[in-house]
Amino acid sequence: MIDIEVVLSPALLHLAEVKNKNVVVIDILRATSTICTAIHEGASSVRAVDSIDEALILRNQGYVIAGERNGHKIEGFDMGNSPFECMNGLLTDKKLALTTTNGTKCITAAMIAGASHVIAGSFLNIDATANWLKTDNKAVILLCAGWKDKVNLEDSLYAGALSKKLLNFNQLKLECDSTFMVLDLYEKAANNISEYLTKSSHYQRLSHLHHQEDMEYCLTENKFTTVVGQKNVEMFKIN
Amino acid sequence: MIDIEVVLSPALLHLAEVKNKNVVVIDILRATSTICTAIHEGASSVRAVDSIDEALILRNQGYVIAGERNGHKIEGFDMGNSPFECMNGLLTDKKLALTTTNGTKCITAAMIAGASHVIAGSFLNIDATANWLKTDNKAVILLCAGWKDKVNLEDSLYAGALSKKLLNFNQLKLECDSTFMVLDLYEKAANNISEYLTKSSHYQRLSHLHHQEDMEYCLTENKFTTVVGQKNVEMFKIN
Repeated sequence: MIDIEVVLSPALLHLAEVKNKNVVVIDILRATSTICTAIHEGASSVRAVDSIDEALILRNQGYVIAGERNGHKIEGFDMGNSPFECMNGLLTDKKLALTTTNGTKCITAAMIAGASHVIAGSFLNIDATANWLKTDNKAVILLCAGWKDKVNLEDSLYAGALSKKLLNFNQLKLECDSTFMVLDLYEKAANNISEYLTKSSHYQRLSHLHHQEDMEYCLTENKFTTVVGQKNVEMFKIN
Repeated sequence: MIDIEVVLSPALLHLAEVKNKNVVVIDILRATSTICTAIHEGASSVRAVDSIDEALILRNQGYVIAGERNGHKIEGFDMGNSPFECMNGLLTDKKLALTTTNGTKCITAAMIAGASHVIAGSFLNIDATANWLKTDNKAVILLCAGWKDKVNLEDSLYAGALSKKLLNFNQLKLECDSTFMVLDLYEKAANNISEYLTKSSHYQRLSHLHHQEDMEYCLTENKFTTVVGQKNVEMFKIN
């Protein structure tokens, strides 16, 4: 039986016992969707970094550097934070360093807190991720990146969707009220996630920035089966 | 139009702009339900205090002192944290000082953060509270006390119920994803809140402590119309 806990904001991560658990970091729009896409499209690794300066140093070590702040590409960077920028062979065998407003900070926080694996959560590979977690058979924390520590709908919804998949394996130990909340939220939205999310604050924010195509892509389930995780300082294909 | 924001845990309060807004503190099981009951039953005021020592000092100033830690009555205190202890005229014209694991800390935190009024949230007077907020016509923050900073179901559910009441006045400005979440949660649970909450972690915790009667009482809607709020250091009847 897998013990599961949902953390709705990075500001609540200190309340969870992270050590030796698998932590799924969830920044659906768009960091963790983009990371999964980059690895699926052939990047050799993705390194989540907290600061722009750290990324600039890594560029000197041969990394392609990508990132956004407040939804905008960082000036002087090779790429923004769109999954489409990872396609068409542009990242084949390249090492990518990514820094974003919310998601990449959660990846480093979860590693520092002692996670067994940190997994990049996305709808794009949700079934493969659920299967990997089932097989690895460790307690799981679903860490929603939110927006600047505020709880958001799309990350909570994915936490519900993944909890549901794990529940379907009949392996879930539920003692966490946040898990009940996201499961019910997902049930409410499952029929049409895109439509449901039109009310979310970040969906509105990205719409204003003309990222409609990114959002539709990031909400598509099971486009690929690559599972992306991190044991030390880089994210790789782990299945 | 009332702007409304839901804060799912006290650990997220620093993300909200509290100044000059009405803050409804929600600790349904049981602190804010008990505070509303105490005032309705004739207590002249309730003072929320953070520490046991602070309560003991107030006893020397004539206060009745009440409180719990981890669901248990504090040794040597006059009362625990059950609403039933406030009945039968025991508190008539008395000043009560209350300290609890979660709720009372939120009341002091909201005051310190500059709230206009801090309101004690409970199902027992939900319609009267909604009407008062509508009339006062200030932006509202619904602050869920949770359990030791963790998000819980019953406080989130009340936040959804109160948001729905305010929404029915057609006066709600919704830009907060947490508000959407609790509204959907409430919709899911509205038909039978008691049954829905049997899965919640704190419901289980209190059941083990034989507080079944307290829980049924605290989940009853509109037993009275007294609205309880705080402008300075004490909570009073404000309607």
